[in-house]
Amino acid sequence: MPDQSVPDQSVPDESLRAHMSPEEFRRQGHATIDWIADYWASLDGLPVRAQVAPGDVRGLLPPSAPESPEPFDAVLADLDRVVVPGLTHWQHPRFFAYFPANSSPAAILGDLVSSGIGAQGMIWATSPAVTEVEQVVLDWLAEALGLPEAYRSDGPGGGVIQDTASTATFTALLSALHRASGGAVRRSGVGGTRWRVYGSTQAHSSLVKAAMMAGLGEDAVRTIDVDASTQAMDVDALRDALLEDVEAGLRPVMVHVAAGSTSTGAMDDVAAVAEVVREWGVWVHVDAAWAGVAAVCPEHRGHLAGVEAADSFVTNPHKWLLTTFDCSTFWVRDRAALTGALSILPEYLRNAATESGEVVDYRDWHPQLGRRFRAVKLWAVLRTYGLEGLRAHVRSGVALAARVADLVSADDRWELVTEPSLSLVVFRLRAGDEETMAAMEAVNASGEAYLSHTTVEGRAAIRLAVGSWRTTQADVDRAWAALQDAAAGQGG
Amino acid sequence: MPDQSVPDQSVPDESLRAHMSPEEFRRQGHATIDWIADYWASLDGLPVRAQVAPGDVRGLLPPSAPESPEPFDAVLADLDRVVVPGLTHWQHPRFFAYFPANSSPAAILGDLVSSGIGAQGMIWATSPAVTEVEQVVLDWLAEALGLPEAYRSDGPGGGVIQDTASTATFTALLSALHRASGGAVRRSGVGGTRWRVYGSTQAHSSLVKAAMMAGLGEDAVRTIDVDASTQAMDVDALRDALLEDVEAGLRPVMVHVAAGSTSTGAMDDVAAVAEVVREWGVWVHVDAAWAGVAAVCPEHRGHLAGVEAADSFVTNPHKWLLTTFDCSTFWVRDRAALTGALSILPEYLRNAATESGEVVDYRDWHPQLGRRFRAVKLWAVLRTYGLEGLRAHVRSGVALAARVADLVSADDRWELVTEPSLSLVVFRLRAGDEETMAAMEAVNASGEAYLSHTTVEGRAAIRLAVGSWRTTQADVDRAWAALQDAAAGQGG
Repeated sequence: MPDQSVPDQSVPDESLRAHMSPEEFRRQGHATIDWIADYWASLDGLPVRAQVAPGDVRGLLPPSAPESPEPFDAVLADLDRVVVPGLTHWQHPRFFAYFPANSSPAAILGDLVSSGIGAQGMIWATSPAVTEVEQVVLDWLAEALGLPEAYRSDGPGGGVIQDTASTATFTALLSALHRASGGAVRRSGVGGTRWRVYGSTQAHSSLVKAAMMAGLGEDAVRTIDVDASTQAMDVDALRDALLEDVEAGLRPVMVHVAAGSTSTGAMDDVAAVAEVVREWGVWVHVDAAWAGVAAVCPEHRGHLAGVEAADSFVTNPHKWLLTTFDCSTFWVRDRAALTGALSILPEYLRNAATESGEVVDYRDWHPQLGRRFRAVKLWAVLRTYGLEGLRAHVRSGVALAARVADLVSADDRWELVTEPSLSLVVFRLRAGDEETMAAMEAVNASGEAYLSHTTVEGRAAIRLAVGSWRTTQADVDRAWAALQDAAAGQGG
Repeated sequence: MPDQSVPDQSVPDESLRAHMSPEEFRRQGHATIDWIADYWASLDGLPVRAQVAPGDVRGLLPPSAPESPEPFDAVLADLDRVVVPGLTHWQHPRFFAYFPANSSPAAILGDLVSSGIGAQGMIWATSPAVTEVEQVVLDWLAEALGLPEAYRSDGPGGGVIQDTASTATFTALLSALHRASGGAVRRSGVGGTRWRVYGSTQAHSSLVKAAMMAGLGEDAVRTIDVDASTQAMDVDALRDALLEDVEAGLRPVMVHVAAGSTSTGAMDDVAAVAEVVREWGVWVHVDAAWAGVAAVCPEHRGHLAGVEAADSFVTNPHKWLLTTFDCSTFWVRDRAALTGALSILPEYLRNAATESGEVVDYRDWHPQLGRRFRAVKLWAVLRTYGLEGLRAHVRSGVALAARVADLVSADDRWELVTEPSLSLVVFRLRAGDEETMAAMEAVNASGEAYLSHTTVEGRAAIRLAVGSWRTTQADVDRAWAALQDAAAGQGG
């Protein structure tokens, strides 16, 4: 028993009163769930794009935090007053911009469980289930996508949930540098070697950002031309670049393969790229952030042909696989390169399980130390949809995009810029760039639908990406009708 | 209207059936809230540390994802069967290991709202409220912590929510390199200059990891000795190291100031460090991951004296300020260095608001591109606790730690290793290292409480950090009673 001579500390009672009681948590929790259901129900009637000007939202908020507690109801009420008008609604059925960011009901509840458990899985020992459920769920997904056996947790590789594909690409680059340098980069940095990283002109901007963050600088990224019609990397040009760079004393370390580019969904040829870079031992990183999850459908797996030769692979269930942001699934063929680049073991994290070598400590798989139990939401999605439900979701997106492509092709004011890629359609007004951009802006400003743009071979184009779990054919048709009106407004 | 000549696509009906109906979402959502409330209610009777062996959890799961959908109830049931036994319960009232990771009810519901909204705030235009609420909430917190005016969003600096302090420290280093190189690092990398980074021997391991990731290598980090009694950085030793390095042609770029070290809560002297490094233009990064939030109490602000001279500052509301992981608040004095290091503008993100310069695009403030609406949970915490509720929470932790320190001091088998630092107490058995570690392991194995260890001046010590919102004096006393039993078992 505690020494009775030590008096009680005067612990302020209000510290306990300030927390919600269990009953209050249940009541407010149910109210929050209902708020979300009501918000979703309201979406169809709301403009997709926020209609506010810079500063409008902040102008509705007081300049300082309150001194005294406010009820949670006040926060919920301010969601409607302050937040909702300032949102562009990513869960809206007519959100077709960028790529989707799906927040399915099952994923949301899975993530809610993670918050409630509040476990921190930086190492196996700090909550074994956080690590082991993640390993199992990533093995499930690797199998469902037809990824190589080597990526499974019982092989030399393994999977981990990263926050975003940007982080996965950065991590891949660090792993590549570690392997190429035999560990020297970890100890003494990247200086002294003129490293070179490759990606097509259509590679995601996170490749350049990764090179900047890794200390190589943006000049270390050599961009490779693409085929004008497919927008896929010209593999012959890659070979020429490698030969030239090696000749010049540069050291190729990683190639980024876009399996579904952001601009047009272009698919680099994984197998051909891997074959070209093989003799120099270049790390092959496949960035399938959006398109990778489509491989749950056997008929949408072709773009991953050759992935067995890849050293790492990333795809985002938080894009098109119904899993709440953030959930970017990343696999490596050899986890030793990854943990070699990132492991750190301070005294306070030493423990018997780690020293036994029987467990995985995920802190060595990403830049961060702390980590959330993100596997729960993916587990909930895989189970409550089942693989057949996920396939149906992907097929629905592909079918609706095909419908848009048909509508574009049937209207001679418009033209497809590239062949549709899965659920992404890229098109423009034949009239020209200004007319195309004006038509898109008119639709976005109307709030009827929300689209984003790109440039392809120097000309402006509209991107329409289907993916929300709430999108139906009627939504696609409404977006098309709005585009037709806008085109008419452009004299199209 | 759509061209009637384009036939309907055969969109599979099951793609819609697979999603939860609104009614089902409400029902399952309420059930999930209730599961969390029940889980919390059960914690007091559960062992704090997981009692499983490696592989136990994964052994309970099937090898593949299901083909057909399962009801969400099955997931909830498996939480009890598979997950809970494999958890170390971070929300347990007798979790005293590492630092706390608080998941208060208000924060959980705030984060649930973020999931339901599912907005992606990579740039202002993709959902203005995501950016503006974050700016306002970080201004509120900066004011509440007494941070410099320059950190506010209406000044030259500003704040952003990072996932973890590791990322914040890495980001600070990238900003420091950008400023020191006049932008050359961004373009051509870190090679060619022999950069040097400084931190005490007690600096968090993320400093070394940041140097590794930034391409400097671990050898670029020079560790500075600490005062044996306070464990704070020896500022004279820092000055000597800088002089020696500059003389040797090295280029000092950043100093890490621990305002609350992980091991013992040691406080480096921010003002003195800043004064020493000033003449070389070294970036001063204050890592107050755990202790920084205590500054909501004016009487616990002393360790931040001199912070007006810091270039960047990080503290984690997800540690001790009742906000669900992840929420690491990071401020810089000059946002130009930060965005200069990290900005990227691909075509598809170009927009009028960005080009106007009137808005902040947070994608340029961190390694990731995509970002969640994490400000909602912090907003919910600040409002529903109010500053007085937050102060009461911090004071409760400090008072309970003081009680533990009194109990240690009153028992001559034990001794304090350092003076208590806020809510952290570090102590050991006088009998020796083995006895100390065995006592801690006995308590951890019993499940009665969970503690972690460190070494101080080469000797083992137990750390007890108070911080959970569920911890009362009775919990602290039970942990102490368990330690006394364990000490007796060690012949203490």
